[in-house]
Amino acid sequence: MRTFIGIDLGGTNVRVAKITEDGQIVAQVKGPSYGTEGPEKVMGNLKEMIREIPDWRECSGIGVGVPGPVNTKAGTMVLSTNLPGFTGYPFADELSKEFGMPAFLDNDANVAGLAEALVGAGKGLSTVFYVTISTGIGGVLVVDGKTVSGKHGFGGEIANIIIDRDREKVNYLNVGAIENEASGTAITRKGREAFPDKDVPHAGAVFDLADAGDEKAIAIIDGMKKDLGQLFATIACVCDPDIFIIGGGMTKSADKFLPGVIEQFKAMSHQAVHDTPFVIATLDEPGIIGAAMLPVSNGI
Amino acid sequence: MRTFIGIDLGGTNVRVAKITEDGQIVAQVKGPSYGTEGPEKVMGNLKEMIREIPDWRECSGIGVGVPGPVNTKAGTMVLSTNLPGFTGYPFADELSKEFGMPAFLDNDANVAGLAEALVGAGKGLSTVFYVTISTGIGGVLVVDGKTVSGKHGFGGEIANIIIDRDREKVNYLNVGAIENEASGTAITRKGREAFPDKDVPHAGAVFDLADAGDEKAIAIIDGMKKDLGQLFATIACVCDPDIFIIGGGMTKSADKFLPGVIEQFKAMSHQAVHDTPFVIATLDEPGIIGAAMLPVSNGI
Repeated sequence: MRTFIGIDLGGTNVRVAKITEDGQIVAQVKGPSYGTEGPEKVMGNLKEMIREIPDWRECSGIGVGVPGPVNTKAGTMVLSTNLPGFTGYPFADELSKEFGMPAFLDNDANVAGLAEALVGAGKGLSTVFYVTISTGIGGVLVVDGKTVSGKHGFGGEIANIIIDRDREKVNYLNVGAIENEASGTAITRKGREAFPDKDVPHAGAVFDLADAGDEKAIAIIDGMKKDLGQLFATIACVCDPDIFIIGGGMTKSADKFLPGVIEQFKAMSHQAVHDTPFVIATLDEPGIIGAAMLPVSNGI
Repeated sequence: MRTFIGIDLGGTNVRVAKITEDGQIVAQVKGPSYGTEGPEKVMGNLKEMIREIPDWRECSGIGVGVPGPVNTKAGTMVLSTNLPGFTGYPFADELSKEFGMPAFLDNDANVAGLAEALVGAGKGLSTVFYVTISTGIGGVLVVDGKTVSGKHGFGGEIANIIIDRDREKVNYLNVGAIENEASGTAITRKGREAFPDKDVPHAGAVFDLADAGDEKAIAIIDGMKKDLGQLFATIACVCDPDIFIIGGGMTKSADKFLPGVIEQFKAMSHQAVHDTPFVIATLDEPGIIGAAMLPVSNGI
């Protein structure tokens, strides 16, 4: 079976792995990424790590997941807040020349969705939409095994979708942007506003208060269900996916909101699409597996 | 050059044409569709018309555009309001067996978008979103030359996307659904409500009143610009198209709203996507040309 080099590059850490076509990790190396020290240091370190992978020459391609939007055609980052100096840097080209095999770059949320689409819950399906709900909200559309990153690498960047115009302005995102209304950060913020005298360290505390019957907490969670239900209904109007796969830290509380989200999705959708499955992401290591799937997704 | 049979089947009329791979109509037959008389009559008539096309045996495949959502994998209609009896009918299979060549079925809005994507304004681009604004609002996402119809054929059925929760309930669609707020029908309705003493036969009358400086009419058109701007911003978050192509009857007034729509789109979108082009559909006959492109889109 063919193997690929998958790289999960963050601002702090980096992992490099040799992964089979069906998503099994057969070797890996971890270490600091030196992300703040600029491309020369980061790339030098990365190349050394790739050479530590046993029989790396047998691999058929390299895929890299990075934080932020990517121009997938050029193999460059469009914005690189966590990796200073990498905006426009010829990342994929440099790896391809150095190691003599095709190399591809994509956003880390996109590659996680790609992993779920190709070797996880979406295996064998043609239209997969992956949504990650954690401190932020992101996603990716995968059609026939290929991420739809679009013209500027913003495909699937659903954080800024407006679900209600009548909300407060929170940050640079649109008023009523889904990320500011239903992410973990948003639920924590709403909890702190509703309970100024209580300790609300994270969204889980608001779920706990709702479980205990607190009406203000229940209202926050009910609002989240409606907001996310509308988000999924909107996405379904655009691409009617075969499956919604949901990942991210908030999924550990999925039993407390997902049934309500699906109910709201149905209330805002044509009956014909009511059987669209909502499935929690299943892979343990989608980031690095999805990176390794990038060459496959690109026809290698 | 290869040729294909394109069929544009409506409830009242049907057209059958022989069309080249690059979208030139080389022969065509028109007539009544007998759409209300059931599948046997409709299909019998259609087969006769195909046989009237000179050298139809030289064609490499058949594509059909029909009104309503389609299960493209099965080649069947999911809903057939204007073609009674066709829900679930093995449409593509029957044509394929009868004429000994591959046959495909898709929604008429989808095939119009496919034509614009493959041989119109989207030629050569990988991610194209086509929006039709007429009495209703529809659309289609085309990725790498293939319509993304999705699990139930509802991909691109954007009419029901909620752009503002704080609107009146109009019909079976969601409160605040874009079709009820920014289609030709919606602008006409709003015009009649705002001007009970005036004759408002169509949306054009509201544009004329706005042109003449009427503040109520200007408010209606400004609202339409914001609603459509939000729609396009939402779609861009999902798939970040290389181009938005806009078709449908309302485009004849495009100079009166499209610049404002683009301005609103930018106000609700990340700066990186501000250069996304908005282009008016250019093909004279997208319905039948797109139908003929269905085999190409499906790899024939």
